[in-house]
Amino acid sequence: MILTLLTDYGHADEFVGVCHAVARGILPPDVPVVDISHGVPRHDVRHGALTLRNALAYAPVGVHVAVVDPQVGTERRAVAVRCGDGRVLVGPDNGLLSLAWDRLGGAAEAIDVSRSRHRLEPVSATFHGRDLFVPVAAHLAAGAEFRDAGEPLAIEELQVLSLPEPRLEDGAALAHALLVDGYGNVSLDLGHEQMMALGLTIGTRAEVTCGNCAAAATVVQTFADVPAGEMLVYEDAWGAVAVAVNRGDAAAALGVTRDAEVRLAPAG
Amino acid sequence: MILTLLTDYGHADEFVGVCHAVARGILPPDVPVVDISHGVPRHDVRHGALTLRNALAYAPVGVHVAVVDPQVGTERRAVAVRCGDGRVLVGPDNGLLSLAWDRLGGAAEAIDVSRSRHRLEPVSATFHGRDLFVPVAAHLAAGAEFRDAGEPLAIEELQVLSLPEPRLEDGAALAHALLVDGYGNVSLDLGHEQMMALGLTIGTRAEVTCGNCAAAATVVQTFADVPAGEMLVYEDAWGAVAVAVNRGDAAAALGVTRDAEVRLAPAG
Amino acid sequence: MILTLLTDYGHADEFVGVCHAVARGILPPDVPVVDISHGVPRHDVRHGALTLRNALAYAPVGVHVAVVDPQVGTERRAVAVRCGDGRVLVGPDNGLLSLAWDRLGGAAEAIDVSRSRHRLEPVSATFHGRDLFVPVAAHLAAGAEFRDAGEPLAIEELQVLSLPEPRLEDGAALAHALLVDGYGNVSLDLGHEQMMALGLTIGTRAEVTCGNCAAAATVVQTFADVPAGEMLVYEDAWGAVAVAVNRGDAAAALGVTRDAEVRLAPAG
Repeated sequence: MILTLLTDYGHADEFVGVCHAVARGILPPDVPVVDISHGVPRHDVRHGALTLRNALAYAPVGVHVAVVDPQVGTERRAVAVRCGDGRVLVGPDNGLLSLAWDRLGGAAEAIDVSRSRHRLEPVSATFHGRDLFVPVAAHLAAGAEFRDAGEPLAIEELQVLSLPEPRLEDGAALAHALLVDGYGNVSLDLGHEQMMALGLTIGTRAEVTCGNCAAAATVVQTFADVPAGEMLVYEDAWGAVAVAVNRGDAAAALGVTRDAEVRLAPAG
Repeated sequence: MILTLLTDYGHADEFVGVCHAVARGILPPDVPVVDISHGVPRHDVRHGALTLRNALAYAPVGVHVAVVDPQVGTERRAVAVRCGDGRVLVGPDNGLLSLAWDRLGGAAEAIDVSRSRHRLEPVSATFHGRDLFVPVAAHLAAGAEFRDAGEPLAIEELQVLSLPEPRLEDGAALAHALLVDGYGNVSLDLGHEQMMALGLTIGTRAEVTCGNCAAAATVVQTFADVPAGEMLVYEDAWGAVAVAVNRGDAAAALGVTRDAEVRLAPAG
Repeated sequence: MILTLLTDYGHADEFVGVCHAVARGILPPDVPVVDISHGVPRHDVRHGALTLRNALAYAPVGVHVAVVDPQVGTERRAVAVRCGDGRVLVGPDNGLLSLAWDRLGGAAEAIDVSRSRHRLEPVSATFHGRDLFVPVAAHLAAGAEFRDAGEPLAIEELQVLSLPEPRLEDGAALAHALLVDGYGNVSLDLGHEQMMALGLTIGTRAEVTCGNCAAAATVVQTFADVPAGEMLVYEDAWGAVAVAVNRGDAAAALGVTRDAEVRLAPAG
């Protein structure tokens, strides 16, 4: 068993530390707590959802808290979702968890934990990580019964995120900047098959366009396959086609913002 | 048992990691080490003291290290303080621990650990977290006798912090910006009762003034109760009255600096 | 037993968290995982090597992963090295580990783990921390046989880093800025004996020169021995002679960049 945390709380303040402190007051000492990331851009539910989906595939089965929660303190539901593969996800019902359960065997069962017996009273209006999500998750990780932690909730009631859809047309891919990491590497909503369909095999040249910015890139396996400062197209560590600049910042070079349309085509 | 750490070391360097390494060389594997925060602004003893006080209320009883220590290497004392509720605080004797023990049942017993048998020799002049505070705390968390870790010290000898005092006058509160978090949310030295005394109940409008900046705000429960970009007055997660801008930065909007006087009054 | 991690992954993304998740899926719950630092400047192998060397002296014997790996995905080897003192280092064979094993009893035995049975298949081209280094290290920390984790490799085949050499001439030290920490404190490649040879004892004045910048400093034990804003020369927590500004930034004041030559001489 493991408890994992993903939030947009950052590391400047004590929010993450207090969540750990609360968890440790509930968990047996042999249940580890792992920070997946607290660097999700503030209030960016989609970024958090993609990060959670990507990361949990590499985590042991456990209870996984995610908090990116611009509607904290309002009537939005707080939920726990049991996935087909046995994991339990805990967080606000704003779509944040939905990409993860899609990837992890689907949502098998859900409960509304907004008034869970495991919450810390009084629940503040602004810090549900501390008062609601972490205590509920820690009790579940410590062995509490899933159905006992909240009220039954129909799976169909859960909020889900929708992602933009990439298109292939005229020999080019019209894709989107799904994620930009801290280095400025840009993950697109394209996979290996679409690259093959465009003829963008290792060693070929590609043209990358975003708004008024266009750049030439080489399709390679890894950063060091091009000189420093040059742009590359590669399959990133999560299996997505991505654009980067070796030792540089592709998002800045291309003026890419979140969900921006990025056109990718063979050069010439 | 738990060991917690709070410092102004930040995450750019290895200082925090080395403290963990030292602790793990002393602690049994089943004593968790929790980072409360390492983002305290450098040398800001008051910020550290308030953060420690707020956070420890949510932590299980344990040994709690705090290091914000501009006088490291000089004659300032290093101390361990046993609180009325059983916790042990370890850190420099510069007031950093004093707000926490006030909140946690008072200082019941103190020792001077400057020359503790548990320190790492040779003690450097600049990194007492590694050489003194963490080893002493880890030995205490591992079961070492409190009085055996240093020399007896009278409680009255301990340094304490004093906080500014808010005033109510002419139907307004003259309060102070005690803490500004990483989002620019400003915590004041006012509580629920003072808000009630001013007639600032949920839904009313307030005028917030700091120096030459004045702004109108709504008294609400949570951020999402006002539109993005608008100012709110609310009770924060620690029970203090606070000023924020939904999805914005109130400290910047009001030009608030640490301990600045902030005037809060009903609008109109 | 302990597993430690040092990388240049930073805390903005989920890279570190995913490494922890992978480790926890392999390790028994009683083996702690300690983050030495993830703030190594991106791709700065030398900075990582010095940090690893300095920090491990304070860590219990364990398995120690380091990843600063600009050549990830190319033909550079991945290695595990058993040190004379019993520690095992795991990382890319680019010199990153070499300063540490020098300090820790020398390299006693090495294996090439590039195709280790413990790696996660498929190994991505860009995230060997997750797919190769951490799983290999976690299996070793969990008790797997060292020689079984890779192919035998002659010690002489391992890449080593060379450091610049300081000189004493005309009563001055010509040293180098080996490390600049997050506060702008500058560690030089000088030790206690060389300071004594120059007559720079506690309380004397020194002239510090870097390029066109010259400044006067006092030789002291700790920051608070000089007024705020003044420059000091001191022995840092790792035993190196260092230059700092009390509550300021010496690297900025002197225009010091990495490996810059810094001249240190008695004043007047």
